[in-house]
Amino acid sequence: MTEVFSPAGRLYGVGLGPGDPELVTVKAAKVIAAVPVVAYFAKQGTRGRARAILDHWLCDSNLELPLVYPLTTETHFCDPAYVAQLRGFYADAESAIAAHLLAGHDVALVCEGDPLFYGSFMHLYVRLKDRFSAEIIPGITGISGCWSAAKAPMAWGDDVLTVLPGTLDQEMLLRHLGASDAVAIIKIGANLTKIRAAITEAGRLAGAIYVEHATGEAENIIPLAAKRDDHAPYFASILIPGKGRRP
Amino acid sequence: MTEVFSPAGRLYGVGLGPGDPELVTVKAAKVIAAVPVVAYFAKQGTRGRARAILDHWLCDSNLELPLVYPLTTETHFCDPAYVAQLRGFYADAESAIAAHLLAGHDVALVCEGDPLFYGSFMHLYVRLKDRFSAEIIPGITGISGCWSAAKAPMAWGDDVLTVLPGTLDQEMLLRHLGASDAVAIIKIGANLTKIRAAITEAGRLAGAIYVEHATGEAENIIPLAAKRDDHAPYFASILIPGKGRRP
Repeated sequence: MTEVFSPAGRLYGVGLGPGDPELVTVKAAKVIAAVPVVAYFAKQGTRGRARAILDHWLCDSNLELPLVYPLTTETHFCDPAYVAQLRGFYADAESAIAAHLLAGHDVALVCEGDPLFYGSFMHLYVRLKDRFSAEIIPGITGISGCWSAAKAPMAWGDDVLTVLPGTLDQEMLLRHLGASDAVAIIKIGANLTKIRAAITEAGRLAGAIYVEHATGEAENIIPLAAKRDDHAPYFASILIPGKGRRP
Repeated sequence: MTEVFSPAGRLYGVGLGPGDPELVTVKAAKVIAAVPVVAYFAKQGTRGRARAILDHWLCDSNLELPLVYPLTTETHFCDPAYVAQLRGFYADAESAIAAHLLAGHDVALVCEGDPLFYGSFMHLYVRLKDRFSAEIIPGITGISGCWSAAKAPMAWGDDVLTVLPGTLDQEMLLRHLGASDAVAIIKIGANLTKIRAAITEAGRLAGAIYVEHATGEAENIIPLAAKRDDHAPYFASILIPGKGRRP
């Protein structure tokens, strides 16, 4: 008997962009069509936003590999039980993807936005990158989708642009709001009351734009000052565009 | 005689991404194929990087409208003669685009990267937006192209990510390098000596990656510490990835 050597498959980290399926790159669509296995993250009980975008791009030849989070994203990261559970989830996801790669099948691990910009992809990439070859296909970031939908020129000339996770404490938010020309705040959800307080204290409420579901069907864009409640999805964003130099 | 009313055309701001023609979005390719006029910026004496990407996407039906800068990007912005010349350039470009829109033709004004992220598009958009309807098609930013090519997970969890134009003074660069987890420095060119000094003083040289012509044919990615000279193109980037929390 002859042993057939099968070279390992390649891992693709593929960004799907902010929500509108047509904001996927030509390269991403080609990679998805070409690979046998398409893996994606989803929360328990939902199909997930990545899977919704995939509706437009999956082919009959693709095997779907959903990676289902054990918990929601808003559980506190300081909780050791949560960290342990998440570590277990990533270990299982790593094994599932590695099994396909070892069998010689290329795997596209897709995610909303850009794979290397606050993406869960990175947690699997660092676990797999030393054993398998990998290629990253960038995607339009969620915040880029937000400022495009809001038609808000975001950063000009010498502007400093800072991306702030809304999970930071109020003092840290305030410090960066005072030091940066343009600010994009991500991960809003339950943090909105605190974020609004920091923006108000920094004297930047008048320039702040609240954006929900950018480029999707439920898109909602209003001045933050006009938003009457503090309910927000985790994936909402707040933009404070820069002013820059203008000839 | 009957006067025929022709409604004004629509302005599209279209991001072309970091260089690889396949990193254009499906939506951008469709808009370019559909509009009669495609406008793009170029420097005097060159076709320009946007035009090079367009090679793959222009159709026979597209009328090309090159907008040729009077000067290079590295002239000092504080020079009043430069500002006046640039203002004249934008006024002429505005007129040229407005003439097509008034004639009822849609115009795609394309640019590398993302139109609202340090893009020249914004200077024309603010001049045209009150007279014409407009739509923005986001693009992969240059820095996203850089960290994807470098396979560098850029921002994790609660990381603060700051984008710094290399044109800022050394003290300002130093302050932000000390306050941010992840840093992307753009507009390198003649600023590299100063940028390197700030990074070194901030104690962050070991984590800094120098990226030139990301996703293009002349791609060059090396640790900044290994770069022996201070020659760099204006559109090079320096990345200092964040470390974030990792389960």
